[in-house]
Amino acid sequence: MNRKMIFRTVGEITLLESALLLIPMIVSLIYGESCWLSFLISSAIALVIGLPLTIAFSKVNSAIYAKEGFITVSFAWILLSLIGALPFTISGEIPNYINALFETVSGFTTTGATILNDIEIMSKGLLFWRSFTHWIGGMGVLVLIMAIIPSNSGHAIHIMRAEMPGPSVGKIVPKIRETAKILYLIYIGMTVLEVVMLLCGGMNLFESLVHTFGTAGTGGFGVKADSIAGYSPYIQWVIGVFMVMFGINFNIFFMILIGKIGSAFKSTELLCYIGIIIASTAAIVINIWGTYDTFGETLRTSFFQVGSIITTTGYTTADFNTWPVLSKVILFVLMFVGACAGSTGGGLKVSRIILLTKIVKNDITRALHPRSVNTVKFEGRTVEKETVNYVTAYFILYIFIYVIMVILLCIFDGWADITSVLSGVSACYNNIGPGLGAFGPASNYEALSWMSKIVLIFAMLLGRLEIYPFIVMLRPSTWSSVRES
Amino acid sequence: MNRKMIFRTVGEITLLESALLLIPMIVSLIYGESCWLSFLISSAIALVIGLPLTIAFSKVNSAIYAKEGFITVSFAWILLSLIGALPFTISGEIPNYINALFETVSGFTTTGATILNDIEIMSKGLLFWRSFTHWIGGMGVLVLIMAIIPSNSGHAIHIMRAEMPGPSVGKIVPKIRETAKILYLIYIGMTVLEVVMLLCGGMNLFESLVHTFGTAGTGGFGVKADSIAGYSPYIQWVIGVFMVMFGINFNIFFMILIGKIGSAFKSTELLCYIGIIIASTAAIVINIWGTYDTFGETLRTSFFQVGSIITTTGYTTADFNTWPVLSKVILFVLMFVGACAGSTGGGLKVSRIILLTKIVKNDITRALHPRSVNTVKFEGRTVEKETVNYVTAYFILYIFIYVIMVILLCIFDGWADITSVLSGVSACYNNIGPGLGAFGPASNYEALSWMSKIVLIFAMLLGRLEIYPFIVMLRPSTWSSVRES
Repeated sequence: MNRKMIFRTVGEITLLESALLLIPMIVSLIYGESCWLSFLISSAIALVIGLPLTIAFSKVNSAIYAKEGFITVSFAWILLSLIGALPFTISGEIPNYINALFETVSGFTTTGATILNDIEIMSKGLLFWRSFTHWIGGMGVLVLIMAIIPSNSGHAIHIMRAEMPGPSVGKIVPKIRETAKILYLIYIGMTVLEVVMLLCGGMNLFESLVHTFGTAGTGGFGVKADSIAGYSPYIQWVIGVFMVMFGINFNIFFMILIGKIGSAFKSTELLCYIGIIIASTAAIVINIWGTYDTFGETLRTSFFQVGSIITTTGYTTADFNTWPVLSKVILFVLMFVGACAGSTGGGLKVSRIILLTKIVKNDITRALHPRSVNTVKFEGRTVEKETVNYVTAYFILYIFIYVIMVILLCIFDGWADITSVLSGVSACYNNIGPGLGAFGPASNYEALSWMSKIVLIFAMLLGRLEIYPFIVMLRPSTWSSVRES
Repeated sequence: MNRKMIFRTVGEITLLESALLLIPMIVSLIYGESCWLSFLISSAIALVIGLPLTIAFSKVNSAIYAKEGFITVSFAWILLSLIGALPFTISGEIPNYINALFETVSGFTTTGATILNDIEIMSKGLLFWRSFTHWIGGMGVLVLIMAIIPSNSGHAIHIMRAEMPGPSVGKIVPKIRETAKILYLIYIGMTVLEVVMLLCGGMNLFESLVHTFGTAGTGGFGVKADSIAGYSPYIQWVIGVFMVMFGINFNIFFMILIGKIGSAFKSTELLCYIGIIIASTAAIVINIWGTYDTFGETLRTSFFQVGSIITTTGYTTADFNTWPVLSKVILFVLMFVGACAGSTGGGLKVSRIILLTKIVKNDITRALHPRSVNTVKFEGRTVEKETVNYVTAYFILYIFIYVIMVILLCIFDGWADITSVLSGVSACYNNIGPGLGAFGPASNYEALSWMSKIVLIFAMLLGRLEIYPFIVMLRPSTWSSVRES
């Protein structure tokens, strides 16, 4: 295993974070807040950790494989979160470091689950940093590194695969660095567009930025206790539509940009994703009929929560805890479905659900006609056997880990009821944010014990990085390897 | 497709039911109850349906394959239930036929879910029939047919495979008829043993029979409103231990009978099954510590509920709805785990869980070392690729169907809360009986709408027959087949 290359990449990422921490520092200086110093200290700590690593390993063999990619990503995300939590604790606004870590991991993993009882008393600088972590984590910090640092490695695709959400990451263009650049340019373009549209709706620049970061990363951190409920219908529609857009595979936007609009809209995943959103919205509109004054409000509220949950953003404009059970169950199921592969959203991903359905159909046919040769096709191409195994194994592992985490939470916090535990773990694991019951949109995760918070921190990281990186990191055989280069 | 053979087998099973219906008739005659006539009428109806089918197709080609096996089993179980529900409605004791069907399907599938608000006012004859359906359904009615009717078909294994619970059914001895006979002899032997032990505990013959049927089939129908709670600790221990025994793969008993005791206790599934029971019992004992007066009572109560839920029997000696959340979640998870393959229990089955774990481990290794050749091994043998695909597809399908049924129940019965719906569907689907919340051990399924009851009837059948038979029956391509022999 190429340990040196892992150290170097982790070092580079820490340096990048050191630089990124200066942005919220500027914000707090603009608003004349005292917390600017906590960002400077944190940035300095990141520099002290990152610089030696980068310099010491600057001239190592950069060849890496799947295993190194997974481990780099796991380590990078853990270190990133440990440092990112510092400003909250140093400034004294979240004195408990476990709480600060929960909030930061929730930010980077674009979960949006919070332990804050009153976000409206937080300083602007920290609110900015909190939402900015969504934006950084959304597209992936390692992808960002690849876009800005020239790499002579032909294997960077392994890092990208480990960090990007979804079952299969392809290169948009042959060069991995160009792919990373294109992804970030689309990401930045859409971010700017949303900020402008929110400004047009009369939102101030600070709140426009914060909410756009939360939407772009499908994160969900805001600045108000009632999330998006207090804003105008226009604002709610803009955020609602952008949430759904950030849940689409970024390859689709690239295809549209280069003029292949026809083939973009032939994507099975895109069509299913839109279909699920329309069907779920319609079902909830019928189910909650009469709760809101007008059809427009009912439609907007239903669409917003559906878009927010399926993309795993977690913004809310209504307390869906008070909705009828069917609507709650639809939202609970959407939590697991998630957005499209190759987007910033979490969950299982629509393409995995489609693939699982096809695999099952195929296996049934084969059980009945043992001599028939069947292959699974997706997006017009035959899916390789390795991908099929990978997707089924992922699903099984996903469910097993979910069950284990639910049991752990019940052990550490026996006071919670079943609905709260099931939905709370699911909301963190799928990077959504609010759950149902005690962890519903009107409350938060503060009441949990620190052990449960650590379980949920792992839930968020496992959900964002899609399990495998951590499994690889924790397998004893990974470290007993004799191959050392 | 060999439709004629399907008709003949279904006819034979209907004739068998016609005969079996005379047993509860005798019971009601002994107790001087008027419901004996309803059994006679139902028996006559079964005769009128079964006799023509059996005679008309008596000389058909008996060669059948997997597809015919699945379809025979689906049809047989549906017809069996439709006829078996008649005595309840004809006697007027369950006037609503959907309710009667729910109760009968719950019986045959060994679920033990009830719609009866007061079982203690039911006549002895119907209570006997209700529990007797557990005993019939437990080992499988088609297996019984095979044991008693000489068949010249070399393919009867397909019927046995479709009806017996678990991922893999092997022949104990080379001849399928002998295998069926041995299974039933073990089944009868253990049934007699339990009856005798209950009689020794001072239980009367009627209740000993009824509870033994419920235990043997891992069903759970009793005669008291408080299930087993009112009986002595001795009775509770006997029933508890027998529940666990009936959840063991019957091949194990056969191996013990022929003296291969050593290899019987080397079975991975048996060891895991016992391990899960011990671990869950220990966890619940600790979790509910202080709720009951003595350690003995705490241990007995914990062991009884664990044994009852993991074997999907559903007898209770305590209202676990009032237990702390960890105990509830453990029981909820055990609902899905289920008993051993080749036993009368339901659920996913311990062997499937073991196989899924091994498949996942194998797939992770392969993802990291693409050139490595790995095979999944279970009980010392290499698992065929077909079995691996079958098990993963089953798990995915199982989860998908669960989600669909939960959504349907929310549509039809919006008043229920999430915990009740999730656990109620799970309790029927896994053939357990009582769920949590509104469907907990202290209540029943009567309040549901008839649509939800039909959903749960299918849930119970799908759970008992393990999905595939119904999928095959409902696939359009099954019926458009041109192969007609």
